[in-house]
Amino acid sequence: MTETTDVSSRARPILPRGFADRDALDIAAAEAMMAKIREVYALYGFEAVETPFVEYTDALGKFLPDQDRPNEGVFSVKDDDEQWLSLRYDLTAPLARYVAENYDRLPKPYRSYRAGWVFRNEKPGPGRFRQFMQFDADTVGSASPAADAEICMMAADCLEALGIKRGDYVIKVNNRKVLDGVMEAIDLGGEANAGRRLTVLRAIDKLDRLGVEGVRALLGAGRKDESGDFTKGAGLTEEKIDVVMSMLGRQPYPVEDSLRGKSNPQGLSPFMAAAQDTRAFQDGWKELQEIEALCRSAGYDADRVSIDLDVVRGLEYYTGPVFEAELTFEVKDDDGRPVRFGSVGGGGRYDGLVARFRAEPVPATGFSIGVSRLLAALRAIKSPIVAAAETPGPVVVLALDRDADSMANYQRLVASLRKAGIAAELYLGLGGMNAQLKYADRRRSRVAVIQGSNERNATSGPQVTIRDLNLGAELAKTTKDRADYLEWRQRAQFSVDEAELIERVREVLARR
Amino acid sequence: MTETTDVSSRARPILPRGFADRDALDIAAAEAMMAKIREVYALYGFEAVETPFVEYTDALGKFLPDQDRPNEGVFSVKDDDEQWLSLRYDLTAPLARYVAENYDRLPKPYRSYRAGWVFRNEKPGPGRFRQFMQFDADTVGSASPAADAEICMMAADCLEALGIKRGDYVIKVNNRKVLDGVMEAIDLGGEANAGRRLTVLRAIDKLDRLGVEGVRALLGAGRKDESGDFTKGAGLTEEKIDVVMSMLGRQPYPVEDSLRGKSNPQGLSPFMAAAQDTRAFQDGWKELQEIEALCRSAGYDADRVSIDLDVVRGLEYYTGPVFEAELTFEVKDDDGRPVRFGSVGGGGRYDGLVARFRAEPVPATGFSIGVSRLLAALRAIKSPIVAAAETPGPVVVLALDRDADSMANYQRLVASLRKAGIAAELYLGLGGMNAQLKYADRRRSRVAVIQGSNERNATSGPQVTIRDLNLGAELAKTTKDRADYLEWRQRAQFSVDEAELIERVREVLARR
Repeated sequence: MTETTDVSSRARPILPRGFADRDALDIAAAEAMMAKIREVYALYGFEAVETPFVEYTDALGKFLPDQDRPNEGVFSVKDDDEQWLSLRYDLTAPLARYVAENYDRLPKPYRSYRAGWVFRNEKPGPGRFRQFMQFDADTVGSASPAADAEICMMAADCLEALGIKRGDYVIKVNNRKVLDGVMEAIDLGGEANAGRRLTVLRAIDKLDRLGVEGVRALLGAGRKDESGDFTKGAGLTEEKIDVVMSMLGRQPYPVEDSLRGKSNPQGLSPFMAAAQDTRAFQDGWKELQEIEALCRSAGYDADRVSIDLDVVRGLEYYTGPVFEAELTFEVKDDDGRPVRFGSVGGGGRYDGLVARFRAEPVPATGFSIGVSRLLAALRAIKSPIVAAAETPGPVVVLALDRDADSMANYQRLVASLRKAGIAAELYLGLGGMNAQLKYADRRRSRVAVIQGSNERNATSGPQVTIRDLNLGAELAKTTKDRADYLEWRQRAQFSVDEAELIERVREVLARR
Repeated sequence: MTETTDVSSRARPILPRGFADRDALDIAAAEAMMAKIREVYALYGFEAVETPFVEYTDALGKFLPDQDRPNEGVFSVKDDDEQWLSLRYDLTAPLARYVAENYDRLPKPYRSYRAGWVFRNEKPGPGRFRQFMQFDADTVGSASPAADAEICMMAADCLEALGIKRGDYVIKVNNRKVLDGVMEAIDLGGEANAGRRLTVLRAIDKLDRLGVEGVRALLGAGRKDESGDFTKGAGLTEEKIDVVMSMLGRQPYPVEDSLRGKSNPQGLSPFMAAAQDTRAFQDGWKELQEIEALCRSAGYDADRVSIDLDVVRGLEYYTGPVFEAELTFEVKDDDGRPVRFGSVGGGGRYDGLVARFRAEPVPATGFSIGVSRLLAALRAIKSPIVAAAETPGPVVVLALDRDADSMANYQRLVASLRKAGIAAELYLGLGGMNAQLKYADRRRSRVAVIQGSNERNATSGPQVTIRDLNLGAELAKTTKDRADYLEWRQRAQFSVDEAELIERVREVLARR
């Protein structure tokens, strides 16, 4: 009875869904990757700035793509002065607040980068977390397409710096203004249709995840997902859905040829012709061409930065060019089928975001890398950056005698190793010699140092035994019939004067 | 009228109280500092692990020192399954959850470290934030005082690695069991008095902040702070308050001599004699002596690790040894008076924290560095680590002509610099030449690259002007009568063939 009560009152050691721990290898790999990204951002003249995790809810605004949860996808609490606070859902909205707050003292244009965790109070799923890391770079205070072009080139450089080969990625560029032109053509122009336009954009943005049929459903009446949840659609007619979908062909889009005065091999629907006649479409197209020209003259060809009308981006605040970094190499999906790796980041121009705080317009553009997604890509291509992150464990000094004097003596040996710059530790558990060696193995240690009382009290002065754990492991697998078995064994474990400890441990560590 | 509406609907670009942004210099200095700490932790065989920011509220438990706010000091939200989630208030409680969740697959003892932001929903004040960073190291699964001793030595090594000189810091060690003995002696023993004991401990912990009178008030009836808020006290009699306060003398405490059989120069009150007779006091004292012996034999003397009965630590979960890293050098306070810098971190043994999740006991001990506090200390001693974090800005290529062709050409120059590994950017604003040079200055740039249409179209091939901004600034301050003025001016700004751009920029960057 008592025991049952104890068990039920015991806290459960589990994480809420959508949150995850990171082990040493994950952290080291992510850090190595981010160090490379930081180098590239710095090369482009961007400097670090960071905002806190919590902001006033009204300062963040509501621009999230999915609003299927309470608080519209954001974690929020009421402060004791009755104002709502929220955990940031991206790094862009807080940057807009930062720039507005510090506008006068910042250099303008203001180029900055930051890596940080963001939070979405959404339904978690496979690969879909409620806390994830983004690595952003933004230029605030420039309306020039040169700022957008630079962001695209920088994204390309980041991927190459990380070992992703040219041809295995592409930075795709589109323009929300071009999309606006299409919306106008299918009678979704004007302020009154803003909500439906957003629904259409978000439907298009889900093409990779939901496929053609899923997107068509979201453009039409709506879609029921696997869990039975229904998402209301944009309510377009079949004909208009066809128009939108025709824009999303994986083939190069005929608009481009048409606008450049070339013949149009696929024919242009009346809707598309109407779209091209809109001011929005033409403005957007002109910006895209400028971005393209700037990239080309800096040596970035279409295999690196390329116009692609598929790109939409789900966030509401984009106002002009939008970017997507797509990895084009194939990986196996959960069912073993080859699929394109897909997006690892994106961004765009958000000219209205800082202006929410200020009387004058403050144009801005930026790019955000999905850190865990990009790390998964580096793992998929077996990047040396990830592999190098795996470091060996410390030298383990075994604790064979546990009286206070012996422990103090072991501690002294450990301290001498550390003083020499060798990562080392004293085994602090209660296990016997085998358990201690097993522990060293789990720590990926390469050397164990052993000193029993006999060795410590040797007449010739204190001795220590040094064990090469890698060689020891190989030795255990081999046959004693080897001609050099004894020599090998002597290399794997040997005794030396305590005074030689550091020198000989260094020797063994240098063996690989 | 319309304008008024616009202004009032505009979001305010401000942060909630108790939260702060970090600029490039803050981030670089903190990163450099943390890299050093990480090195030391790794040298001690600790490996990185990180938990997310959000946990189930019941998994974190309630161990905070101050509970003067809603949710008892913690930011909490209800999840859609009606369970409470909280932002972590330290890194220890989440680590306990992590170890319990992954117990079987972790090496034991499990040594780990992590840096991370933690959150307290408390009343913010000067130097008192609601989001701050801690850098923790913990050994879970060892009850040995050797684990505690190691944590203390590691803390000392961290401070020295950061350039804090021996003599300018001390790692102070006390034991909650010793304090428990004192509590028993003043009739605060037993489960029924747990709450009052905690109130006493927390009062003592505030000695640095509140001074003797403030602590006495909190030990007695209670204390009203400057804002008028009243904190209820422990309700001790004056006589018992005297006992507690006598323990907190800045002089070496007589108990030590007394226990070691030496004469007791200051006399021992009957309460103290009673305290020393308790089992708790004696157990605690024995552990302290073991820790001391282990430190001494590893070469850490009393100037680095020292027993000090002042140390309490405010968190409820400590069960044995407690540590405090104190910087002993003086700085000026806000009123210009010299004060000890004080604590930059602390920790202790928390044998009950993992056991909350498991049937068996899992002893643990750890240490936590207050990152911004330690950084402030490094700034106070003008640490080279902080100074080295200040890096110069990028080369700025001015944009004098803004037609598409010129911009593309500037972009090409910038791209060539970056390709050579030189941080560079194209000015993307709308300012004229002076505004652009001022911008470069604000960015702490050392070189500006200038190309007007004349230079670009020079008959001898395209030219660029390279301007040494440091030298230019000096030149502006000097007199034209200097004998070498012209030579100097020629060094500060000169024209070269575009083909020599990279080579000559490198030369100028190498000047300092």
